[in-house]
Amino acid sequence: MDQFVPPVKDMMFALDQFIGLDRLSSIKGFDEIDKEFLESIYGSASEIASKVIAPTNVDGDRIGVSLEKGKVSVPRGYKEAYEEYISGGWPTLSCNPGYGGQGLPSLVSMPVNEMVMAANFSWAHLVLLTNSAIRAVDAHADPFLKNMFLKKLITGRYAGTMNLTEAQAGSDLSVLNTTAVPDGDHYKITGQKIFITWGEHDLSENIIHMVLARLPDAPDGVKGISLFLVPKYLVNEDLSLGERNSLEAASIEHKLGIHGCATCVMNFEDARGYLVGEMNQGLSCMFTMMNDARIGVACESVAIAERSYQQALTFAKDRVQGEAHGQKGRVTIIHHPDVRRMLLKMRSHIEIMRVLVYVNTLELDLAEEDQGHSKRADLLTPITKGWCSELCQEITSIGLQIHGGMGYVEETGAAQHFRDSRITTIYEGTTGIQANDLIGRKVIGDQGQELRKLIADISSEINTLDAHENRLQLIKESMIHSIAVVEKSLDYILQEQPNDPFLAGSVSYSFLMMMGTFMGGWIATRSASLAIINLKNTEDSEFYEAKLVSSTFFIEQSLPLVDAYSKSLMSGSVSTMTLTEDQF
Amino acid sequence: MDQFVPPVKDMMFALDQFIGLDRLSSIKGFDEIDKEFLESIYGSASEIASKVIAPTNVDGDRIGVSLEKGKVSVPRGYKEAYEEYISGGWPTLSCNPGYGGQGLPSLVSMPVNEMVMAANFSWAHLVLLTNSAIRAVDAHADPFLKNMFLKKLITGRYAGTMNLTEAQAGSDLSVLNTTAVPDGDHYKITGQKIFITWGEHDLSENIIHMVLARLPDAPDGVKGISLFLVPKYLVNEDLSLGERNSLEAASIEHKLGIHGCATCVMNFEDARGYLVGEMNQGLSCMFTMMNDARIGVACESVAIAERSYQQALTFAKDRVQGEAHGQKGRVTIIHHPDVRRMLLKMRSHIEIMRVLVYVNTLELDLAEEDQGHSKRADLLTPITKGWCSELCQEITSIGLQIHGGMGYVEETGAAQHFRDSRITTIYEGTTGIQANDLIGRKVIGDQGQELRKLIADISSEINTLDAHENRLQLIKESMIHSIAVVEKSLDYILQEQPNDPFLAGSVSYSFLMMMGTFMGGWIATRSASLAIINLKNTEDSEFYEAKLVSSTFFIEQSLPLVDAYSKSLMSGSVSTMTLTEDQF
Repeated sequence: MDQFVPPVKDMMFALDQFIGLDRLSSIKGFDEIDKEFLESIYGSASEIASKVIAPTNVDGDRIGVSLEKGKVSVPRGYKEAYEEYISGGWPTLSCNPGYGGQGLPSLVSMPVNEMVMAANFSWAHLVLLTNSAIRAVDAHADPFLKNMFLKKLITGRYAGTMNLTEAQAGSDLSVLNTTAVPDGDHYKITGQKIFITWGEHDLSENIIHMVLARLPDAPDGVKGISLFLVPKYLVNEDLSLGERNSLEAASIEHKLGIHGCATCVMNFEDARGYLVGEMNQGLSCMFTMMNDARIGVACESVAIAERSYQQALTFAKDRVQGEAHGQKGRVTIIHHPDVRRMLLKMRSHIEIMRVLVYVNTLELDLAEEDQGHSKRADLLTPITKGWCSELCQEITSIGLQIHGGMGYVEETGAAQHFRDSRITTIYEGTTGIQANDLIGRKVIGDQGQELRKLIADISSEINTLDAHENRLQLIKESMIHSIAVVEKSLDYILQEQPNDPFLAGSVSYSFLMMMGTFMGGWIATRSASLAIINLKNTEDSEFYEAKLVSSTFFIEQSLPLVDAYSKSLMSGSVSTMTLTEDQF
Repeated sequence: MDQFVPPVKDMMFALDQFIGLDRLSSIKGFDEIDKEFLESIYGSASEIASKVIAPTNVDGDRIGVSLEKGKVSVPRGYKEAYEEYISGGWPTLSCNPGYGGQGLPSLVSMPVNEMVMAANFSWAHLVLLTNSAIRAVDAHADPFLKNMFLKKLITGRYAGTMNLTEAQAGSDLSVLNTTAVPDGDHYKITGQKIFITWGEHDLSENIIHMVLARLPDAPDGVKGISLFLVPKYLVNEDLSLGERNSLEAASIEHKLGIHGCATCVMNFEDARGYLVGEMNQGLSCMFTMMNDARIGVACESVAIAERSYQQALTFAKDRVQGEAHGQKGRVTIIHHPDVRRMLLKMRSHIEIMRVLVYVNTLELDLAEEDQGHSKRADLLTPITKGWCSELCQEITSIGLQIHGGMGYVEETGAAQHFRDSRITTIYEGTTGIQANDLIGRKVIGDQGQELRKLIADISSEINTLDAHENRLQLIKESMIHSIAVVEKSLDYILQEQPNDPFLAGSVSYSFLMMMGTFMGGWIATRSASLAIINLKNTEDSEFYEAKLVSSTFFIEQSLPLVDAYSKSLMSGSVSTMTLTEDQF
């Protein structure tokens, strides 16, 4: 029941849609990459994901992690899987070649991340959070710190964590009050952080905590936050491990899901830390990683959804129940139209969400040297994170539903994905935070310029769709309609917002969901077009016919939501803002 | 954090919308009931729900139930709460006066059920399932059996269970194979049943299992199923308890939620059972209770959603995070527009779902002597069950989301409602089963006649809305549009269905969700109209203004989904049915 096979062929098709696997070498940074290279990487990653990591998933959920006397115990297989993963060099793919990385674009490593996340979502957090720490150190630390920590982080010998949240400072970091007091060449860090993913474990030799804290006399609010590197074990000049730093995991959370992931309350008491980046620039240092982290969560959403789909599909092909038109005798439930509807809803969304993650990642890869790509990546990120994580809830819920009563029984395993996925709309910025970022900073902030560019790009692509291809007609018409709806909604927001300070916040969620669905329509269009092209030159028609069907299914079943979200948002803020606190 | 106050005032307003609290006595069966009587019942029920039952909820979830040597242990407080509940006569409200019941309409007891379900959902299953057993015995058992069991069931001294499902027979009961062999005046029942709610416990003196089984030489399929009464302890002629029957709980399920409810695998081995109703008529005996059971689950959905709302609201009024336009300094999160949107989404749906449950219950109360009401009840039931349980998922998920990271931590309690609610779209017929029942039996089955009557009733009500009342204009226009969309969808289904055997199954879910949303629009209209009337004659304007706002919010934010569901369903069955099994 709990097997997992990474969908490498689907991933390659998803990559093909926006970067073109036959013309990779023409894209900056992809010069030395070709289709065969990718296939070989993903083939090997698929092996370790399905055979080494995936088998640890069930124990991770049922046995989970525990904390005793400051030490975290992990389920069997975790350490072996980690050793095999790092000795295979997997964490190094997209890291700095100056410190042991392979320097490949993030897009190349994203499908590998997806496989690992789907294999064991809890376990995967260890490598994801380490990767965030790597990016922070690489981008902002001085050569001394890089020399001391970066290579070991990149090779996975050290793990990393992000220490942002405090009990009173969740979505609002301005009020955090962990302190950092200068002490010679370093600082003494004191405070308590909560929700620290893999804050403690012994899977790696050392743990490098990236901690937000305030210097004495720092300004109030977000302008007084600095970033510090605080190792679990101090490191000597010869890079050997030194004494234990004064920090510890005080407790671990009892969570709805990701039971196989140690989410810690961390206490720092005069712990030795090193400043990373400039004083009081901690938040902006964190922001440089924000896009990566958020796309990462979107990728997690794809991964769990895929895992949930595979499990539901296996069940639907196996479970015999009832009779069906055109079939003799009792049938497996995949023959029931409503079960097929549910499977197609899962599948069509997963395929589209995957492409959205890849597109966004590509834009980010290209952003370093191109302002246009940078702005596009900034615009897409909250859509990608918000929409994919929201859809992931629906998909894993359907995955459970397909199992009927068995889905409600934990042993079946469908419920795990439902529970695990529930975190994705919350961490790295809730859906509300994404929606506010999108409508505020990314759209109203530039008076809709970047969004209009995106709509224009989509529009011109839709207009060039082959008018003689019957199977694209419905898609073309539907998208032309949706483009008009999105434009009207944007006009409405830009026009009303100056007169209504509550408008943006009140309609932000509908706007984000509208944009996600609209982007889905664009991707479905690309996917259908590419499938039709491939159908003409392939013997693998079953595969591309299925892609054409699932893209069409999305256009028929989900794209109409663009209208519904638009109507919702154009109702404005009045009903949302009228009630007093007591009237709720 | 985990307090619960039954929303009695909301319930009274909900009742007022369709039955009119000032003209109760004109309704058949309600002759001796008036507003004061209801207020006094609900006031007392509110006390026991909030002070006696609700405090057992957290232990129910965290400690849960366990089974050892065939005996089920329950959390502390369960037994005391049960004793107080039955000695207060609460189970007897709507039961047969000939056997100790009070003979009140089901509608009178529905709000009491809602309170109990919200107080402790797991615990409440005990009284719900007993009530189903009571209805089966009352409707179909002979006087001998009634005399022996019914009064004790009605007074709660005995509890009851429903034993339908077997491992291979879930949604499809035709293949069940528990056997019943005649043995004098009774039968010997042998077989294994799964998912038996409260199949074993010692909260009551005895447990009466209603079991579906096959007689020797019974016809295949559903026409060969009979219903049997199988007591845990045999009962002597003087009604004292006799020896233990040969049945036992073999194990209990480890479930996603309702941890405080013993869901058992039951083994029967030559257990003594009594035939209830005619031979081979077991399924139709069960069907007489089907509407009740399904409305019951819809009521559960309202109850858990309400509990989730109360918890989220408390958190939103307490949690300080960020700043908000027009407010000084840091604010509680209820001041953030997107949090208000989430609260209003929860609240507006809960209010509407509650009325839908009451309307459906009223139709069922009136159905006994009136074919028109009976048909209306049959049409509404799958909509009520399907839509309310689906919405409950979304609402409890939002309830968790409002808590941010704290929502993902089990100690907060928000996650319990999310987990508990997940069963409601599954048991008593999955959403897929409801959708098929609706589109097949209830709509195509009579060529849409009953649905057209319903639409005509709604239509004439909308047309008479006061054209001078500004605050009803948007509602009126939106509903007139939605009526046309629903009619067009119905025409499409009736026209296409004869030529496409897959159509009904492929579009049934969208049809059900469209109908639920449309009914919601009708109820929002009633609610807004009544609020406006009451605003003219009351000092309680805060309350009715809030009702007007939340009804308007539903019309603005959710009614547009009628169009989206209609578009989805009018795409037909092609995309859903095209893929081969291998192509999935």
